[in-house]
Amino acid sequence: MTNHLPGNDQANRPRSTSRRSLIGRLAAAGFSAPVIASVLRDSAWAQDATPDATPTSEGVLAGLGKDSRLIEQGSTTFETPAELMTEFLTPNDQFFIRSNGPVSIDIPRDEWRLAVTGLVERELDLSFADLEAMEPRTITAFLACSGQSRGRFGNEPAAVEGTKWGNGAIGNAEWTGVSLIDILDEAGVQPGAVEVVSQGGDFPEMQRGLPIEIATDPDVMLVWQMNGEDLPPPNGGPVRLLVPGWGGIASTKWVVGLEVIDRPFAGTYNTESYVIIDEVGAVVRPVREMPVSSVITSPLPDAALPAGPVTIGGFAWSGFGGIERVEVSTDDGATWVEAAIVEEAGPLSWVRFEAPWEAASGTAMLQSRAFDQRGLGQPVETEWNAKGYLQNSIYRVPVTVE
Amino acid sequence: MTNHLPGNDQANRPRSTSRRSLIGRLAAAGFSAPVIASVLRDSAWAQDATPDATPTSEGVLAGLGKDSRLIEQGSTTFETPAELMTEFLTPNDQFFIRSNGPVSIDIPRDEWRLAVTGLVERELDLSFADLEAMEPRTITAFLACSGQSRGRFGNEPAAVEGTKWGNGAIGNAEWTGVSLIDILDEAGVQPGAVEVVSQGGDFPEMQRGLPIEIATDPDVMLVWQMNGEDLPPPNGGPVRLLVPGWGGIASTKWVVGLEVIDRPFAGTYNTESYVIIDEVGAVVRPVREMPVSSVITSPLPDAALPAGPVTIGGFAWSGFGGIERVEVSTDDGATWVEAAIVEEAGPLSWVRFEAPWEAASGTAMLQSRAFDQRGLGQPVETEWNAKGYLQNSIYRVPVTVE
Repeated sequence: MTNHLPGNDQANRPRSTSRRSLIGRLAAAGFSAPVIASVLRDSAWAQDATPDATPTSEGVLAGLGKDSRLIEQGSTTFETPAELMTEFLTPNDQFFIRSNGPVSIDIPRDEWRLAVTGLVERELDLSFADLEAMEPRTITAFLACSGQSRGRFGNEPAAVEGTKWGNGAIGNAEWTGVSLIDILDEAGVQPGAVEVVSQGGDFPEMQRGLPIEIATDPDVMLVWQMNGEDLPPPNGGPVRLLVPGWGGIASTKWVVGLEVIDRPFAGTYNTESYVIIDEVGAVVRPVREMPVSSVITSPLPDAALPAGPVTIGGFAWSGFGGIERVEVSTDDGATWVEAAIVEEAGPLSWVRFEAPWEAASGTAMLQSRAFDQRGLGQPVETEWNAKGYLQNSIYRVPVTVE
Repeated sequence: MTNHLPGNDQANRPRSTSRRSLIGRLAAAGFSAPVIASVLRDSAWAQDATPDATPTSEGVLAGLGKDSRLIEQGSTTFETPAELMTEFLTPNDQFFIRSNGPVSIDIPRDEWRLAVTGLVERELDLSFADLEAMEPRTITAFLACSGQSRGRFGNEPAAVEGTKWGNGAIGNAEWTGVSLIDILDEAGVQPGAVEVVSQGGDFPEMQRGLPIEIATDPDVMLVWQMNGEDLPPPNGGPVRLLVPGWGGIASTKWVVGLEVIDRPFAGTYNTESYVIIDEVGAVVRPVREMPVSSVITSPLPDAALPAGPVTIGGFAWSGFGGIERVEVSTDDGATWVEAAIVEEAGPLSWVRFEAPWEAASGTAMLQSRAFDQRGLGQPVETEWNAKGYLQNSIYRVPVTVE
């Protein structure tokens, strides 16, 4: 599973560091010896190693156990292409990958440890077997990158920063693990707790603060199974945090530490990125829940269809609550009809929708718009923000009917 | 305490109703007999009563026990004027009042009841004495209307709806009561709980859903004291909900019921108002935390000052975390200096800031901008939204130095 990744994504990586200072920083960050060994095995950090020849995207994907048709969006970041968005539960090998650092983390289950520290009555040092001995649960939830659909932002007043995702930085899966609150209860959270800082096993700076009131929601979990299989390493296995509905950055991959602190965490991934930055640079609010969104996945954009009956289909989701209604337009938004929700799995999951259409010759612009249990909906245009997060504008699919 | 309020705020009121149908609706909404009696005593609902002559604003304020200098913003809505924003703890008689219905609710403590229903193991019917027997706590927190500073929104693409507040729809107080979670624990929240719907004692439709993960935050309280005195009736006494940091609508006044439900609550005050509505009418997200903001309260706008040393002072707050830094500019934002935080009381409270200034003859434009523990700050211009919520743009104070 150890790959030698090309180095063309340096902008998103912490600065280079010597092997010795890396070990020191990992130890200072509370990484356990097995995790340090794992990080050192990863070539992105193995400064002493002689790099292989730059691998192809297909080679990287094969090494990660992923479908070779995923779209490379950077050496550690791969998108599910539109033509593969057909399953209600996204197959593990087609699920998108987004990493802020290296992606080929290899922490064997029997070496994985989780340190629980900070404002707790009892510090914990849990093994995978400890987790497995707890009460498991399974939920179905979508998981999307905060930058999902970023490519749809306009370039005014400036191009937005970040991976120019299409609509494939999202997947839906059954996740099995334990509620984070069960672990926090075992540690005994002290009064004054404000956030839980999760430490990723990929690099020392991969730390994210999660408000304690969210961390104690039973739907927030540590998961180790995805669609009934071991959580794949590129998606955070052996164990990742899962914060359903929130932008993916909250769901720390390869989680190896949890520190309960008495203040909001002011780390890079809470304050410099994953925040809404306005046109003059003010940081106005954090990125948290993914807003209501929907995409038509069939037909695909620029499809040529025979005239006659067509089933328009796609997926809709919201981090604020379950999807209540989806509407479809075949005349570029002039009129709308309610679509049928044909597959669903609770409020944390996306839904599949379908609407029949009698396609007549000519061109047509298809659109979908969803509404959630809170009555929230989709804008025609999402508020521009400098890093291009939370893009949920109504998606337009042009087709030709022959 | 019963007043006959002028009826010039009908747009914000539920439609008129006969006394008999009102009793039926109150009973159906689960109001207890004493609360129904209280509502009927209130003249805004007493259709059978012969109204007095329309009272003056001063008369209404005197009847409510409020300072006569509060600014009338509608018959049930009064703002703290800028010249009274001098105290770190806002005096009770100067604290703003905002009501979506009648304001002169009169529920004696010994008649007040709280019904706890829905997804609970044990329904509760609590008296004020029951609350007092629980473990009390006191916190210092600001409380602001979601529409605070709405008057600063521009009229493009359209005038925003709602009370054209200045900066005085906010106050800071010590609140004493019990954590809501202690009551929920006594009732025993069942699995599947999604929101807690609070029922105001003012009218049946005054219901607000609060996500369960917020409702179980120990800082969310039922309070009955404000600055060491009984919570004044116009501010929600005998008992109100307090959700620190969130727009005031979350802090249901005269709370008489709590219902735990298994879905997001889709009531008017969650889905039609207190939501961000964009330029084409899409409801894009709920109003929750008040964003980082600050106001200079001394000197006041258009002040004429003698040249020489001046202390610029004001208050800063954020619903996302404690205030970490405040900066002041005396040249309309060209340069900034850090202000001293001279009074604070934890992250839920506002802070008082001061900065020395050597004023030279001429005109000057003063500004302040605050940053919270999450690194969030204030925009130059707040995103327009149809109902004018969450206005936190940098406030500009023009002065003349003689």
